This record gives sequence, C-alpha cells and structure tokens, in this order.
Amino acid sequence: MPQARPHASPVRSASAAGTLAARFETVRAQSLALAAPLSEADCQVQSMPDASPAKWHLAHVTWFFETLVLERFEPGFAPHDPAYRVLFNSYYNGIGEQHPRPQRGLITRPDLAEVLAYRRAVDERLLALLADDAPPLPAEALALIELGLHHEQQHQELLLTDVLHLFSCNPLAPVYQPRWPLQTVQPVDLSWVDHHGGLVEIGHAGDGFAFDNEAPRHRQFLAPYRLANRLATNHEWLAFMADGGYRDPRWWLSAGWDWVRTQSVRAPLYWRAGDDGRWWSFTLHGLVPVDPHTPVTHVSLYEADAYARWAAAQHGLPLRLPTEAEWEHAAAPLAADAQRGIPAGNFVDTGALHPLPVAQGHEGLLQLYGDGWEWTSSAYAPYPGFRPNAGAVGEYNAKFMCDQTVLRGGSCATPRDHVRASYRNFFPSSARWQFTAVRLACDA
Amino acid sequence: MPQARPHASPVRSASAAGTLAARFETVRAQSLALAAPLSEADCQVQSMPDASPAKWHLAHVTWFFETLVLERFEPGFAPHDPAYRVLFNSYYNGIGEQHPRPQRGLITRPDLAEVLAYRRAVDERLLALLADDAPPLPAEALALIELGLHHEQQHQELLLTDVLHLFSCNPLAPVYQPRWPLQTVQPVDLSWVDHHGGLVEIGHAGDGFAFDNEAPRHRQFLAPYRLANRLATNHEWLAFMADGGYRDPRWWLSAGWDWVRTQSVRAPLYWRAGDDGRWWSFTLHGLVPVDPHTPVTHVSLYEADAYARWAAAQHGLPLRLPTEAEWEHAAAPLAADAQRGIPAGNFVDTGALHPLPVAQGHEGLLQLYGDGWEWTSSAYAPYPGFRPNAGAVGEYNAKFMCDQTVLRGGSCATPRDHVRASYRNFFPSSARWQFTAVRLACDA
Amino acid sequence: MPQARPHASPVRSASAAGTLAARFETVRAQSLALAAPLSEADCQVQSMPDASPAKWHLAHVTWFFETLVLERFEPGFAPHDPAYRVLFNSYYNGIGEQHPRPQRGLITRPDLAEVLAYRRAVDERLLALLADDAPPLPAEALALIELGLHHEQQHQELLLTDVLHLFSCNPLAPVYQPRWPLQTVQPVDLSWVDHHGGLVEIGHAGDGFAFDNEAPRHRQFLAPYRLANRLATNHEWLAFMADGGYRDPRWWLSAGWDWVRTQSVRAPLYWRAGDDGRWWSFTLHGLVPVDPHTPVTHVSLYEADAYARWAAAQHGLPLRLPTEAEWEHAAAPLAADAQRGIPAGNFVDTGALHPLPVAQGHEGLLQLYGDGWEWTSSAYAPYPGFRPNAGAVGEYNAKFMCDQTVLRGGSCATPRDHVRASYRNFFPSSARWQFTAVRLACDA
Amino acid sequence: MPQARPHASPVRSASAAGTLAARFETVRAQSLALAAPLSEADCQVQSMPDASPAKWHLAHVTWFFETLVLERFEPGFAPHDPAYRVLFNSYYNGIGEQHPRPQRGLITRPDLAEVLAYRRAVDERLLALLADDAPPLPAEALALIELGLHHEQQHQELLLTDVLHLFSCNPLAPVYQPRWPLQTVQPVDLSWVDHHGGLVEIGHAGDGFAFDNEAPRHRQFLAPYRLANRLATNHEWLAFMADGGYRDPRWWLSAGWDWVRTQSVRAPLYWRAGDDGRWWSFTLHGLVPVDPHTPVTHVSLYEADAYARWAAAQHGLPLRLPTEAEWEHAAAPLAADAQRGIPAGNFVDTGALHPLPVAQGHEGLLQLYGDGWEWTSSAYAPYPGFRPNAGAVGEYNAKFMCDQTVLRGGSCATPRDHVRASYRNFFPSSARWQFTAVRLACDA
Repeated sequence: MPQARPHASPVRSASAAGTLAARFETVRAQSLALAAPLSEADCQVQSMPDASPAKWHLAHVTWFFETLVLERFEPGFAPHDPAYRVLFNSYYNGIGEQHPRPQRGLITRPDLAEVLAYRRAVDERLLALLADDAPPLPAEALALIELGLHHEQQHQELLLTDVLHLFSCNPLAPVYQPRWPLQTVQPVDLSWVDHHGGLVEIGHAGDGFAFDNEAPRHRQFLAPYRLANRLATNHEWLAFMADGGYRDPRWWLSAGWDWVRTQSVRAPLYWRAGDDGRWWSFTLHGLVPVDPHTPVTHVSLYEADAYARWAAAQHGLPLRLPTEAEWEHAAAPLAADAQRGIPAGNFVDTGALHPLPVAQGHEGLLQLYGDGWEWTSSAYAPYPGFRPNAGAVGEYNAKFMCDQTVLRGGSCATPRDHVRASYRNFFPSSARWQFTAVRLACDA
Repeated sequence: MPQARPHASPVRSASAAGTLAARFETVRAQSLALAAPLSEADCQVQSMPDASPAKWHLAHVTWFFETLVLERFEPGFAPHDPAYRVLFNSYYNGIGEQHPRPQRGLITRPDLAEVLAYRRAVDERLLALLADDAPPLPAEALALIELGLHHEQQHQELLLTDVLHLFSCNPLAPVYQPRWPLQTVQPVDLSWVDHHGGLVEIGHAGDGFAFDNEAPRHRQFLAPYRLANRLATNHEWLAFMADGGYRDPRWWLSAGWDWVRTQSVRAPLYWRAGDDGRWWSFTLHGLVPVDPHTPVTHVSLYEADAYARWAAAQHGLPLRLPTEAEWEHAAAPLAADAQRGIPAGNFVDTGALHPLPVAQGHEGLLQLYGDGWEWTSSAYAPYPGFRPNAGAVGEYNAKFMCDQTVLRGGSCATPRDHVRASYRNFFPSSARWQFTAVRLACDA
Repeated sequence: MPQARPHASPVRSASAAGTLAARFETVRAQSLALAAPLSEADCQVQSMPDASPAKWHLAHVTWFFETLVLERFEPGFAPHDPAYRVLFNSYYNGIGEQHPRPQRGLITRPDLAEVLAYRRAVDERLLALLADDAPPLPAEALALIELGLHHEQQHQELLLTDVLHLFSCNPLAPVYQPRWPLQTVQPVDLSWVDHHGGLVEIGHAGDGFAFDNEAPRHRQFLAPYRLANRLATNHEWLAFMADGGYRDPRWWLSAGWDWVRTQSVRAPLYWRAGDDGRWWSFTLHGLVPVDPHTPVTHVSLYEADAYARWAAAQHGLPLRLPTEAEWEHAAAPLAADAQRGIPAGNFVDTGALHPLPVAQGHEGLLQLYGDGWEWTSSAYAPYPGFRPNAGAVGEYNAKFMCDQTVLRGGSCATPRDHVRASYRNFFPSSARWQFTAVRLACDA
Repeated sequence: MPQARPHASPVRSASAAGTLAARFETVRAQSLALAAPLSEADCQVQSMPDASPAKWHLAHVTWFFETLVLERFEPGFAPHDPAYRVLFNSYYNGIGEQHPRPQRGLITRPDLAEVLAYRRAVDERLLALLADDAPPLPAEALALIELGLHHEQQHQELLLTDVLHLFSCNPLAPVYQPRWPLQTVQPVDLSWVDHHGGLVEIGHAGDGFAFDNEAPRHRQFLAPYRLANRLATNHEWLAFMADGGYRDPRWWLSAGWDWVRTQSVRAPLYWRAGDDGRWWSFTLHGLVPVDPHTPVTHVSLYEADAYARWAAAQHGLPLRLPTEAEWEHAAAPLAADAQRGIPAGNFVDTGALHPLPVAQGHEGLLQLYGDGWEWTSSAYAPYPGFRPNAGAVGEYNAKFMCDQTVLRGGSCATPRDHVRASYRNFFPSSARWQFTAVRLACDA
C-alpha cells in the first residue's frame, strides 16, 4: 500500500499538529469500534493466506506508527516489545524480516488484551509527540503520521472483508451486524453518460493527502467514451447466469476460463443456491436473499470482463470495462458530492456495510464512490515519471505494480474521508473477497 | 480410533454404573485441567491439518457421548444444538456429514464458553443416566460410555501434542508448563534382553477394556530376538547426525530418502540449531537445551528405521525395529509395573510432560510404557479373525488399517490408566508431532 | 526390485555358463520382440512419472549388465559411453547419481538406434565372458547375470504395462497387438477351497533362483481359511458398481475413500463408459467391450479391499483379501501346474496379453499364476531374519519395504519362467496400471 | 495469437494469389528446414507444458490451413483425418474441443511420417485453390491464408525455442546447429538516444499485414524520454549478479522476489556455473562460454525489471523499462533498416540462431529488431477501440489480454519478414524460454 507524498510546506504549525492529533484519535477509535462485535476467537483466526486476523490488523497498524514514526522521531525511543518488529511487519524488507504471511493466524500470543495494550501505549506516545507543548515535529514526521492514518483506514476495510470471509467459512453463518433488510427501491434504469475525452489530465492534484502511486498528475489522450450511470445489479448478473454465462468460453479471457473450470466457479463468491430455488448471499448481516437491484459484488476481474463481453453481445454495443483514466476523468468532478452522502457515497460511515440499490429519480453517474470497488481494464502500473520515495515506505506501492488490476471508487467498507477521485486500489485478477463491482463502459 | 468390545456380562449392576460415573467425572475433569493453561485464542487455532484446536477436542469428545450414547439411550433425547452433529463429527460417515478437517480452526463460533457449557450440559445428562436411581442402562450403553472415556483420553494426548505444535509455530516460544529442568541422572548403559520367541499369543486377554483392533487374541510364531533395555537417547541420535546420518542414502528407505530431501529434514521435529552451536528443543516447557540422556522423540518411522540401519552398521549387529508381536510378547509381563510408576511409566500423570532419562541401577526392559510411543516395523493391519463392530463405532479403527505403522507403549502425554500391553497406536510413516521414540531390536 | 541369492555351489561348470548363455540370448531377444510393434516415437515417451519409456527400459536393463557385471568381471573394462552410467541408473545410490525419474522421457538422444547398438555391444561382451573358451567366471558373476535376466524380465512386463498406459492417453486408441476377440467360455462358478492352516512354512526353498526378499524360509501360524477358486470377474465388478460401490463410504478404507473422491474414481483404470451404454476397456488389443467372465484387472488395493467388504455384506460371509502367507501356502503345490499352461498359467508366453476367463469343468484353485497379480492384505515387509546383500544390488528390494502392499501370482504380461510360488511383487495402494486382480479369501 | 485484418480490397487479382502461393511454398518449406536437424524422437517430446513437440507444431500449423481455410473454401471438402480436428486444435473453443495442452507429447501416433504426409496433402489442396486456373478466392480466404503464414512463422520461432528447452534438459547437451563461435567485436558503448514524445500515434498503419491486436492506430501522449542505444549485455548482467542482484529484495517487484526465492533463481535460464569458475550458457550451438558483449537473453520480466532498478541506482538515473508506445514511436522509423540486415536485424535468416554483439562505429538505436524480444513495462491490453474479429480466429489474440506483458522487436529466432514496428508479442512475467532481452529507458 501507498506512501505519503511530502507536504508542500516544510514548516509545521501547532494547529496542524493539533488537527492531526484529533484525527489520529478518531481513526484509531474507529478501528476498535469495527472490532467491537468480534470475540477473541474471531480476532485470532486467519481464514486464508490473503486474509489476516483482526488481531493482526490491530497490531500491524500500530507497528506502523511505532516503527516508522516513534522509532525515528521519539527521543529516547525504546521498543514496546522487540519481538513485535518482526511479528507485525507485513512486507517491508527495508525494515527486516517478516513473520510468514500464511502463519499470521498461528500467533495466539500476544493475546488480544496485550495487543490492545500495545495500541494504548503507542497512542499515548504518539499523542505526546503531537501535544501542544511538545517540540515541533519535522514535516516528514507529520506526513508519516498522516500516511499511517490512511494506512490504518485501508486495514479497517480489510478487517471487515477478512471477517466476512472468516464468517463465510462457518456453517453456522455468524452475523457481524444484524441490520437486514436494508432498503428497497424502485430501481433506476441503466443509461449512458457521454464523455468527449481528448487530452486530459489524471493523477492527484492539490495539497491534500494522496498515496505516491497517484502521482504525478499527467496527460493522457482519451477517445470519446460512455459510462454506465450505475453499477451492474444482481438482477443483471442473474440474467448472465441464466444465459449460461459461466459455462460459455466465448465470454471469457483465457486465464479466466481456466479459473472458472479449475475452481468450479458458477456464481459470485458468497452466493449460495438455496433449497428454495433462490440464490442467497452471505453478508456481514448473515445469510440473506440476493436482492435484485443491489449492485453485484464479490466478483473477480475475470467475471467482470466476461460479463462485459456477454452484455456487449446482448446489447449489440461495444461494451467493456472502463480504463482507469476514463473513470477518473469522469468521476473527478463528482468527488465532492460523494462526501455528502448517499447515493453518491455509501461508505462504511453509513453503517449499511453492504452495497445499496439506487432509486429512480437520480441522474448522472451514480454509485461512483462507495458501494463497490469498480474493476477497470487497466493494469496497475507506474504513472509516467513516478518516483517511489526513499526509505522503507517506498515499498508501500511500487513493488506491487505487476500482474494486478486497478479498481476505483471505494466500497461500503471504505471510510468516507479515505476516498478521492485519484485513489488507485489494486488486486489480482482472481481476487473476490473485497467488495468488487462492475460498471460498464462503451466506445462512443 | 477404536471401538468398544462388548462386556462379557450382559447384566449391569448399580455398582458398575456408579464406578463408571466416578470415572466419567475424573476423566472429564482431566480434559479441562489440561486446557486450563490455554487462552481462548490458544484453544481456537489449528496449526496444521493433522492437528485440531483444543476447543474442537473439548467439543468432539462431548459430541461422542451425546451422539453415540445420549441420542440412543436417553429418553426424550433432544440435541443440545443440532448444528453440532456435523460440526464436531470427526470422521464417522455412518453418522453423516463432517465439517472439513482442515477447517476446524475456522469455527470461531460457538466460542469456548459455549463449548464449555456444552460439556457441562452433556455431563449432567449423562450422569443422570448413570445415577443410582436411574433405570438400569443396557450393557451396550455402558460399553459405549467406557469407550467414550478411552476416546477422550486419546484426545487428551492429542490436545497436548497439538498445542505443542501450535506453540512451536510462534517465534515467541510460548511455555505451556514452566517446570524445566526436569532431572539429571547417571544414565543406564544400552544392553540387550533376550527372548526365545516360539509360538506365542498376542492380543487382548481378560475382561478389561480394549479397543476392537486389539482382538482377537491369536497365535504368532516368533524367532528368537533381543530388545534394547531402553529407548535410544538424544546422545545416540546426535552421534547419528554427526556421522552424516541425514545425508547418507544407505540408511534410508526409498520413501524416507525422498522425504528427507524434499522436506530438508536434518534433525528431529522440534530441534533447532542454536547460535551457541548447541541443539535446542522446543517442548511444553518452552525452548530448552537438548538433554543427552533423555530419549529422542518426535522422529518419523523413516528416521527410526534409518537410525536402526545406521546403528546396525556401527555395532556390527543385525539391528532393526521390533515387530509389534515381539514388543507385546516382551512387554506384557511388565504392564503391571508400569502402573506403579517411574521408571517404568512416565505418563501424563507424572507431570513431567516430557520423556525422562533412566538412571543407572535399573535392570530389564525400561521405558516400555510412557515416555515415548515406540515405532515398530509392523504395518497396521487387522488381526486374524478381526471383526469391526456394527454401527458407527465400527469406523473407529478398521478403516485406518492401511499405509500406517503400529506404535506401542504410550508416552509422557498418555494417561496412565489408558495404557496396556496390547494397545495399538498407529500413524503414517512421516508423522512426527507425537512423542514418537525408538527402541532397537536384534535378531538373536 | 530383487537381488540375487548366491548359488549354493561356489564352483562353476562350463555347462552352467553355457546354459546361462543360451538363456541370456533368449531373454534378451524377448525384450526386442516385445518392442517390435513400437515406433521410435512410441519408444521415446514417458506417459507418467511411474512409467518409463520403452527405450529407457531397453537401455536400463543393458546398463544393469554393463555396470554390475562387465564393470567388475570383464578384463580391461571400458564403458560403452560414460554418460550412460548416470543416464540409465534407475535408483542405485550405491552406484552414484541418477537422471531424475520423471524426466526419463526427455532424453531424445541417444536415439533408439544408439540404444539398440548399446544392447548389441553389451550382449557381445557378456557372451564373450560366457564363451566356452573364456576363463571361468566366479559364481558371484553368474549369480549377477542370472539376477540381471530376472531383472530384465521384470522390465519386460513393465514395458508392456507402460505402453498400455501411453496408448491409453492417445484419443486415437492405438493397438499394440490386434488379436481381439480372445475366447468366450461357459464360465466356472465361484466356489471356496478350504485350507487348515496351522504352523506352516513360507519363503523360497530349493536351489532355484529367487530374489532376496523371498528369503529366508520361515514359519508362520495360520488360522483355518478358504480361498476363492478363481479371480473376481468383470461381471461381479459391474454388480459392485451397479450397487453404488464407488459412492458408499461403508466399503472403503479411509485413505481409499479420500482417493476415490479426490480422483473421481468410478471404475477400473482403463474402463470407459461407451455412448452405447456399455462399458469398454482399453487394452493392448485396443478399445474392446468389457467381457463379463474375464477377471477384473487394473484395480487399486483400495478398490480390491472395498470390493471384498461389499462382497462380504452381499454373501453374509467374513470375506476379505488373503494374506500373502495364506496365498503362498495354498498356491505352492500348484506351481508346477502353472508351468504347463492354461488355465493355470496365462503368462505373456500365451500371447493373449490380456486376462482370460476360465471355463466350467476346471476344479481347485484356478488362475493362481498368470492373468492378474493378486492383491493381498499384507504390507511389504522383510521376512524374519532377512538380510539384504552387500553392494549396490542390496538396494534392489530392501529399501522399498514400507508403505507398499504385496501382490502374488503373476499376470498375462509376466514371462512364464519368471514366476514361482514365493515371488513377492509390491506396489503402492493406489497403483492401477499393472494387471492387478482380486481373489477373495474367507475365515473358515 | 493474432487474427488477420481484412484486406482493403474485396477483389482478388490472379497475381495476388500467385504471389501468395509462392510465399506459401516458401514459408511451408522453411518449417521443414528448421525441423531437419531433429530426429523423430526430438520431434516427439514435450519438455514442459508451455512448450510443444516439434511434430505438434508441424501438424498444428497445417491444421490451421485445413480447418480455417480448406473447410470453408474448398469445394467438396473432406477432412484429411477427422481426429486431427481435436488433436491439433490449440485453443480455439469456437472450433470445438482440444487435446489437453500438457499431453501433446503423448501423441506418438500419428507418427512423424504421417504428419509430414498431412502437410503435403494440405499443401497440395491449398495450392490447388490458389492455382492460376482455379476459381478466384474471396478476399477473406486470402486474408486467412496470409494469417496462416504469419501464424506458421510464429510457430517456427516456438519450434526453435521449444527444441532449445528440450535439449537443455538432456545432460548430454545435444547440439542443434554447430556453428560456434559466432563473432567477436569491439563492443559499442552504452549511450542514450533522446525522444521528445508528445501526442504521438502508434498501432499498425498502411496496407500490409498486421495482427488484429496492432489496431486501431491511435494517439497516446508521451513525456520526453530516452532509450538505450543497445540491449543490456552479458557483461552488464554479470555485474548485476556480482553485486548480489538476485539476493537483494530492493530491486525486485514483490511477485518477482517470491519467484526468485521459490524457484531459487540466480542467473538467466540457460546459464550454468562451470567447474572452471566461468558461466556457461546452453544454446542451439550447445554449451558455450557466456560471451560478455552479447545481449543477455532468457530473462523474465521480473529479472528485467530488477535489473533496471539496480542500474538506476548504479547510474543515479531514473532508469526503467520502456513502455510499448515509447518503443514503437522510436523504432518505427528504423523498421525498413531492419529488413536490410545486421546489426539492425539479426533474425532467423542470418543463421546465427543466437543474439550477436554490436561493434563500435554503429550509431543510433541498435538491435531494435532481431536478437532478442525486448520486455516493455506495458501490460498486454486492447488498444482503444479494438475489435476482435468474428469467428474462431477472434480467439487468436483477444482472450490473452490479461496478466501478460508486451515484448517488442523480434529475436534471432524470428523470420525477418515476420517483423514490423507495431508487432506486439506477449508472455507472462515469469516466462524465460523465449529469447527475451532488456533495453533500458530513462525519463528525460
């Protein structure tokens, strides 16, 4: 994951530190709030190598602050526990060895209480650095703290998606948050929003925070294109399935077709055929009937791409997935709206913890931010002129720029203030345990 | 695991039920005592497919009583929780589906408290059946309860070996029981005890409990043979290693040599080369220096066999592993001694939780029972005339009689009253996480 | 594979060498005759790691004579090609490195012509050693030559079974020998032949050749038992299948049930469901309809064992597979008959290259030798007092005595003069590409 | 692989057919010439799933003409052998089933002679369609024949690289063509050639043949950049290795670092450490010493990328791999030169069958075409507005546009008249058995 871009200003004002301290307390508290419904056992277990235990998430984000901030900027630094340096290092070779990723769930000690004590200790020490009466911190330290908060927000989303996966493995179908049903609507029809393209700019602009992979802002030439006004729905996906979509090689990338057959895939990740002939879906609210007007989520890039090819044949249109540049160029003007709420922004803050349908009456591009991460057709690659930062945080993003695909927009598990138009999420083509979704594009 | 042989007597006396009730309470309490040093997280995790979480062990042995006894013999039986029937079924196809073995550690709910409540509820219900004022139970029910207690004792041993494996995966090297060092002795020399062989009988005799795989008692012809007076020691094993034992194909079975090379095996399972040039061993007491006079444990059949071939070349004698008939014929007269204590019987009851060295001055066959399970050269197979019982408990033993090897004697993790001369333990050739040990035999 | 036992007589007569020379020429010619129907491409390819290319078989058996006989006993020995020492070494660590087994098929050079030239050169040199006017060879050399001939006969059988497997992978279903249909009969009914058992002797007796694993002859105690008069037939196997035999866990060993499900096994190895609703079988004669009265072959130990358990339930008898001691004790008196021909001995010499049905009118134990190797319930283990020979040929048998099962009797691909009552063949429980068959036994 | 773009002209002239017929004979003969040094066994074997047997290549390219041209355009078409339709189909689901790719080497029948007869028969039938006195063919047929010839040229290159891999598995190190040493030079120094970038066009232009993935020609915006004047050399690669390049995670993509460690990679694919302390390389000329000034080949994208990062640190420059647009924009003006010969074009036609060093005195961008395929940093993706053709040939390219990386320029195994500036080759990041090479780029 990404790395802080240095603030423009090399000077630090007391108010900046104060604001940061307040934000620090808010973000750190939010992690605990998300873990609150979990038992100690829930926090301990790793259900697959891609996922991590909730306890590990809580410890690792704390390790980030201890190792990358306190260790360098706290006078007289001493480690909370020297063993944690290896135990809770995710993938930073620049910092040293790492406990093997598939074995994160085997670390039953330190237990949850010790990890929570670790969090409290690091919080106190970091807030002391940010206190009004403390010596001013260099801008680099402030940037690293801000990076650490965005890093923690990324792990908040992973904590939720990893718990969802864990619970999905339990035949008792545990419920993380019992708030079903969410809402029913008269759904908005699928329509197309045109864009002229041309020589456009994408990438992060302005003074706000961004990860290093969002820079530099640069020019790209886009042919005219159209985007679907909303995400593909479960109803549409059921039509794809009913038409034999998972059994017809015509729609699939070669690697996708191998994946479908070897993994015996026949529906989105958490869907289950009920004895009642209906499809059910395992969610953070437990096992619920598939709602037709809700965006389909938990599909791989392979499925998203196959769906687009099938839809193209259905509609007789050159449908496909959008590129990330097309997405960003179209979505950037609407970013401020997303901060103002549904339907533009169903984030973790809404408490739905599930994608939501959009009702008739809304116009323009809907569901751009929040609900589900939208697969693009763009491989994750460095922008022209990209420079990873020096130091261990240079490993945050750059070394993953191969064999992964960019997703855009955010999901119902993403914090609202963590989202922006230039944000580049990325996962392998077969990943499905995130809230991944599909928005169609079309050549104009 | 094994199946009850019907008691000789079809009638049941109140005192038999009373004795059984007392034993039931003792054995059930012992499981809880073994789990007492563990945190909820420790109880939750499965460190490899062969192992099971402590919580699962506690639930499964309870499931055994509920499903095989209460369900059939309790008037008006209702399940404690219908989902447990699948969730805590180990491998009984006769009872129905099973939760997949490698996913036992993913079941974070029911949590430990619910499992303990499950234990208490089943205890109460089962003790009610055995109460003095209850209607007499049929002999079959009593036999199944007794089987269930031996079954639980087997899982007590597994609980310990599985926790040892789990803790061994944690770089912090957690300690289950801090009682090191145990004892140091002037060790007894290796010597040989002769047996004449001939047409002997092996297999369970008498009225006591035995698993079905120990019957029927039958004749075997044995050529004259000799057994080592004690188990192979760490000191002797270090000599094997120093002589390049793990790198020389001459000593190894073909499958063993493949295993050594593909797994990069160079020492017993829990041994670690210290920075100080010494070998250390991870134990239930934590990481401790390898004690030279203690029996080597945590070796596979492949290692045991290779060691025997190497020792044969060293001694210029036809050394090998004993057959199970040789072992039983020699060990049977000493079974009563083993019940009386060390050195004949270092069981879980001694609290050592580790094999112990034997001091000079002891004569005859030592360490036969307890300390470590002794690999034999006998494949696990049915005795002539073997009949698995009807019903689900017929799956306890019979279906594993292929591609496994018999071990004899018991270990430091075995309950004392669970051991007898005819007991047949069995594991695959590559298994090392049990307290497995080596006693040499020799053609006379 | 096995190792020569030294001849009783330390002295060698000219006539012994002459007899051996004649036999040498016969056996060597037979290998070429078996390869004659194969193209160069057929001889080159390895269809799975367990199988070897025909070219490799032809070279390896020659390597055996060159390396184990010429290298030690030919004055002024020089290797035919030094690279062959590694290239055609199968598994003799005592001789040095081996080309990796799964890559035998990648050695396109030397080509077939060079391998045939290698054979001719070694033949000439070895026959020169055996010539009437040559200096007498030590008895050890003669024993090694005899061992080499039995070794070559084993590879003749493997050459056929490996070609059968290779051709079975080709959708064009190539025919090795077009001689179908073979014969139809009024089949003999299944009946039982009683044996008293008691303290019997098994193992090789007399002066003839035997592999080291057949010795020493020793006593075993057998309870009374019965053997089926003939092998299980395809008709009987179809009844097992029709009764859901492959889908019912009751009949299966635990490891067998795993194997059936993970490999999706539903019939013997080379059986294929025809579009006509019948079962077809791929044979050395091509794809032919399954003949009901022919013995079933190409079944694993798991299938053989499951069939026996199912048959036991069908017949209400304690049916099972025989032990190797039971088999040998019953079969030894009939060995001489087998040398005289069908029905006792359908070997490679009959040219059927397929098991044959037995007609009504024959009495006693039928099909003991030839037709199909009969799975026993005996794990492959050393006999009491077994000593592997010194030197590289000590690796022939001993190091495979683990996790394999003994088969007895020979098959339609075995040379007649290679068979005897004490012969112990062995394969892993899941192996099916040999002509493996099933004879039921029963407790008396 | 790619698909023909329809010719502009719907009409066909006799001379066009005549020219095509001549070219057809030339290309078809070239395939046989490349296979001439191979034995029947060499032609039969598949050394890994990614590779194919030479016999299969010879048959598959013939299948292409039979199935995609004759079947549609030959009056009274009858298949040469109906079984070939499945047997020699590579991956066209639109045509039907395919023989499993990893089992191509098991098809020993039809043998090589039959495949050569298949070639001759199809050649005759196709040339008859193109004969002067034949009825005119539709433009689509001519386009498919031209596509088939480019397809065959792609397989000519694969035939060579697959034979190289096969021979590399043979410890006898067979030689395909003994022509070593090739040439020694005073090597040209590394220098940089500047390009201004801006809004450029890439993609196929003009009337000549191109695969569908090269279209449509479209605009891209490029920042100013520089390209290395030549490919990275073995000398430079040895410096990377000597500096610990394969052991330092700083230089590697995350997936590349996993690959290096799990595969134990420490040098380019065919390099071997000699007993003499030098590095040797296995080539089509056998095992030869690594020449310092020759371009390094047989490296994966992971290695190419790591090398670029290491070189950046060495030079203190923002070095990286070029994008495919940068490469094409710079290379397009030099395409005509490449057709005129070395140093611009070391193709299969030169007979070197190995990359060659460039001597001092040459200026500008060297080795752009031929020698080695140059890894770019561009994921293989559709160009804006890309349309795969209708029909089975639509599977040629489109379905592979995921998780692969574009390579540009051609290699010493590529036919000269098969190369052009817009050609897009593609392989997975870990592929090394092609002649893959490295040209550095730099931000201006």
